[in-house]
Order: sequence, then structure tokens, then C-alpha cells
Amino acid sequence: MDRYNLAVIGATGAVGQIFLSILEQRKFPINKLRLCASDRSLGKKISFKGSDHCIEPITDNLLSDSDFVFISASSEVSLNTAPRAAELGAIVIDDSSAFRMDKTVPLVVPEVNAEDLGHHKGIISIPNCSTTPLTMVLYELGKLAKINRVIVDTYQSVSGAGSRAVRELDSQIHASYKDINIKASIHPHQIAFNVIPQIDSFDESGYTNEEIKMVNETKKILHRPDLKISATCVRVPVKIGHSEAVHVEFNQPVSMEDATSKLAAAGGISIIDRPASSQYPMPIDCEDKDDVMVGRLRTDVSSPNGLALWLSCDNLRKGAALNAIQIAESIISKSLI
Amino acid sequence: MDRYNLAVIGATGAVGQIFLSILEQRKFPINKLRLCASDRSLGKKISFKGSDHCIEPITDNLLSDSDFVFISASSEVSLNTAPRAAELGAIVIDDSSAFRMDKTVPLVVPEVNAEDLGHHKGIISIPNCSTTPLTMVLYELGKLAKINRVIVDTYQSVSGAGSRAVRELDSQIHASYKDINIKASIHPHQIAFNVIPQIDSFDESGYTNEEIKMVNETKKILHRPDLKISATCVRVPVKIGHSEAVHVEFNQPVSMEDATSKLAAAGGISIIDRPASSQYPMPIDCEDKDDVMVGRLRTDVSSPNGLALWLSCDNLRKGAALNAIQIAESIISKSLI
Repeated sequence: MDRYNLAVIGATGAVGQIFLSILEQRKFPINKLRLCASDRSLGKKISFKGSDHCIEPITDNLLSDSDFVFISASSEVSLNTAPRAAELGAIVIDDSSAFRMDKTVPLVVPEVNAEDLGHHKGIISIPNCSTTPLTMVLYELGKLAKINRVIVDTYQSVSGAGSRAVRELDSQIHASYKDINIKASIHPHQIAFNVIPQIDSFDESGYTNEEIKMVNETKKILHRPDLKISATCVRVPVKIGHSEAVHVEFNQPVSMEDATSKLAAAGGISIIDRPASSQYPMPIDCEDKDDVMVGRLRTDVSSPNGLALWLSCDNLRKGAALNAIQIAESIISKSLI
Repeated sequence: MDRYNLAVIGATGAVGQIFLSILEQRKFPINKLRLCASDRSLGKKISFKGSDHCIEPITDNLLSDSDFVFISASSEVSLNTAPRAAELGAIVIDDSSAFRMDKTVPLVVPEVNAEDLGHHKGIISIPNCSTTPLTMVLYELGKLAKINRVIVDTYQSVSGAGSRAVRELDSQIHASYKDINIKASIHPHQIAFNVIPQIDSFDESGYTNEEIKMVNETKKILHRPDLKISATCVRVPVKIGHSEAVHVEFNQPVSMEDATSKLAAAGGISIIDRPASSQYPMPIDCEDKDDVMVGRLRTDVSSPNGLALWLSCDNLRKGAALNAIQIAESIISKSLI
């Protein structure tokens, strides 16, 4: 089997760290691994499979030496790095929003639209962490009947905003118990013992960019520009694991049984749905799990063609790192490299 | 002005304590105040306006001596006490779900359906804490156009499950930081750093009783048995303050401007809606406030006749104690006693 040279940009971040552990777990065929992060981490050593790797600066030499370049840093880093890496012959798999809506860039969840990888031009985007699990569920349900409309309200963990956001939650909780002043710098407000109905900045429509991303990315991935979809994205004081209350309206009635079997048969989805024994998806149970967990499936009492459900998903894994690695695996298996 | 004899049953609970403080704040015209709670609190003293009140057992003597009996304990206590109190001539204002759907019992949010108090037969129910703020918003919006459908997903604080649930959140957080085993006895699962998509038990429809309450109570209060409404009720690790993502579909387009002015002009509602400066309702800001806070008003991108919004409300005040006291005030002002 061929082995590949990888560069991981953002290797010290929340997603980068999970990325490295998944590479190891899945025995990704690596020839050479090179790690990059922000300037303050230069020279820092990170262990991978028992050997130390130094954090290096991003150089043309490094990019041209790479088969795959994974970027999970800021949109700025992606904008500065991805086109150059592609020009130098690497395949970039990018976790930022920078290129997601670019028509020449495939936006991919392998279980849903791996075929879109066929027309890549060196850059492939992965969706926002709240979009990925939603599209997986909608894709399967869309096989049963045409989906007309989707309403989704999210319960997103702080790790979606990076490691510093997790530390800020911890320090706010400690401050709260010590009755000292609570400071917020990563989150727009106190997140400890609170929920914040804002992720990313606002658009003039009154939606946040996080919500607009969810809407537009879902349409692109499902090839459904006509899909009617609305989202409210909310940060909750959970460390890992995004959850979503999803309301789907079809063009005809869909039975709970059909919906459950379709989802249960899908790759990457686990059904956790035993209400009588209080079993349903929750963030604490999805941490470190690859699958999107779906439960609380029920016929919507407000619409004969409606289905309501609840999902939880490890936002750092399937919501980011795992999805990126699965894209690279798809590219290899489809001989697109 | 006439002064009234009050009995407060459940005086030591989360709602009971807030109830007493609101009685004092609003200078409710009290002649005699008597307090009851569970057997283990008998004899305990509670201070009200600087004088101690002993917790007494519930007796016929106490009930017949009362003009108003407020009950915020369990449905069992309400079932055992309310009919007897009414029989003995008191007006019962009950916070449990025991009588809410009884056709002979008014279920009242004074800002919405105070006129229903006119046909009371001694027992008046107050709605579930997640229902009250929703009905206030829907009532105002329903003046602009007929509401066809409502979808609501909640973010409910642990105090909705009582004081012990708040203490359980605290102890789980401490256990988590000390890396010791986390125990859950009040909540069905760990609530620290988690969200739980279950409040109350499940019905065979797949909805929880909390969700069914929200649906049925909203229809009753709004006098809209035909309203299509679906809810997902979720517990979040917040101490006080319930929030809701609400999606309203009218039978015709409603402008953001009209919706905002209608809500802003309503009693008991405050608009907090300045996205550009990250101002919107949050649980930490609604604690100890009387008003339901509404924000994030926007035209729903998935429906030309749709409006999306977000609300937060102190579940112990307007969600429970304040609403009960306002009902008593209405009864007095309407001379229904």
C-alpha cells in the first residue's frame, strides 16, 4: 500500500490533537508527518507514535513535500496557505469556512457526497461541525421522501470554539464558586451556568454566520439549493459534543419505523432511542465516539408529514478531525490522488 | 383596602422561597400568612417581613382560615389538598399539573387570559414554567396574524426540577473536577457539562410529558385547540432561567417591525435585541427579573410567513411564583373573591 506525506496545520489545537490520535487509531498510511501551528508553538515537540515531532513554520518546501495538507487553524491561515499548497501539488483538506461555499471546492461528508471529491482542484472543505451530523441524518431521511423544510436548534459545546474556550468555561465555573468576578474573552458573555444564543457574528438578516453556514452548507452538501432550512445556534456549557433538535417536514408522511431503519442501516449513525429506559443521545456519551447518535425519533404532532428527532455528535471527531481523515481515505480509495 | 389570609404550601421549596420574597416586594395585602411544607420541615421557622413563621401541617382549620391557598409542592399534595381547600371556601392557586387540563379549572397567565378567572370554581392552575413565557409571546404575535404552527425547543434550567436539582448540579460539577464518580438521582443522567433531552417521563407518542404539557397548556390558554405546536424540552446545566428557540408560522407574512413593536408594547415582556452589540436574552440576565425577555427576532429564512425568536425567563418568577401572585392580584382587582 502507498504511504503518504502529511502536513497538519493547527496541530496543537483542539481539533489538531484529536486529528493526530485518529490518524494513529485508524492506521492512516503515513510516510512522513510534519506539524505546523502558530508562531508561539514553533519548536514545541509533539509525540506521535512514540516519536517527537517539532512544530515547524509553514514553508513552500513543507507544502510541496506534502501529499495531504490538513488545515484546522483560522480562516486567515487557510486563505494564506491552501491555494499555495494546492499550487504546489498537495491536496488540501480544510476545516475553515474560507472555501466552503466556493463552487470549485467540494464540501464533503463522505457518507453523503463522496462523489463530489471527483471534481476537486486541490482544495476540499469540510463542513462546520454542526452541519456534518445534520446532513448525514437528512441525507438518509431524504431517501424516504422529499424533504421540504428543516428547522434545527442547536446545543453546541464550547470546544467548538477551541481549547481556550474550554479553559474559559472551567475558569468561569471556578470564579463563580469563589464568588469572584467572572471574565469572558473567548465567549461573548459568561458561558458558565448560561446559554448564549450567538455563535460567530451577526448578519443583517438577524441570523448569525454560524446559522447561515449551517443553512448554506447543508444545501450544498445535499445538492438541494431549494431546501428550506432555518437554524438557531446556541452555545451551552458542555465541553465536548454538539446536540441538535431537528424538525423535518417531508412532502408526504414518513413512518417512524422506516425512518428508524433507514438511519440504523446508515454508516456513521447509531440509533440510541429507548425512551422508556431514558436512553437517547447526550453529549457526555458521544465524546470519543465516531458515530452521530440519533434518538427521540417521533412523528411531529404539529405536522402529518413531520418527523422530530434529536442528535448528538463529537464535534471534534465527526464534526471535524474524523471527517477530514475520512475524506483523505476516500481520495485514496478512489485513486483521486 | 381589604387584606387577605394566605396559606403557602411548599413554602421551603425553590418556588416557595421566591414566592415569599415577591409577596413582600409587591406589598401583597396580607392579613395573616401561614406556611406549610413537607413533614420533615414541620416546626422550622421562616422569616417574613422580619417575623418568624412556623411551618405548620395542612389542616382543615388552616385551609378554612385562608382566602388564598398557594400550592407549589407535588401533584400528589395538590390532588390531596386543592379540592378540600376549595370546598372550605379558599381560592386555590395551584402550580402543579394536577388540574391544569381540567375543563372546570382556569389555567391562567394574567397578561393573556385573565378573563378566564371569571368562571373559577375555587381552583385556578398556573401553567408549566416553560409554557407561560411562550403563551405571552404567542398571544401578542397572534394579534398580528393567525398563527398556524409553532415549533419550540427549550433550554431549561435545573431549578425547574427544584432546589435539590440545583444542589445536584453543584455536586456533580465538584465531583467532575475532583475526578470522582458522578452520581445522578434527581436528574435521569449527569447534568453537569451535559444536556438531557428528557424532562418528565415519556408518553407512547415519543414526546415527554413536559412537551405534551407545553403543547396542551398553550392551546388551552390561547383558546386555540386547533393550534399546531410541537416542542422538544431539554435540561441544560443552568441554575435559573429557561430559554426557548421559537419558530412561528402565520397565515400571512408578518414584518419584523410589527412583531417587535407589538411585543415591546406588551406588559411583562422586554425586548433585548441588539445583535450588533451581542445583546439578546440569556438566563444569567433574566434571573430575579419579572419580565419575559425576547430577542433574536428575525424573518424565518425557511418560510415567507415565518418568524424566529429567542426568549429567556426566570422560571421561578414569571414561570411560577410571580404568575401565581399576579393571578391573586387579578382576582382581587376583578372582585372575584
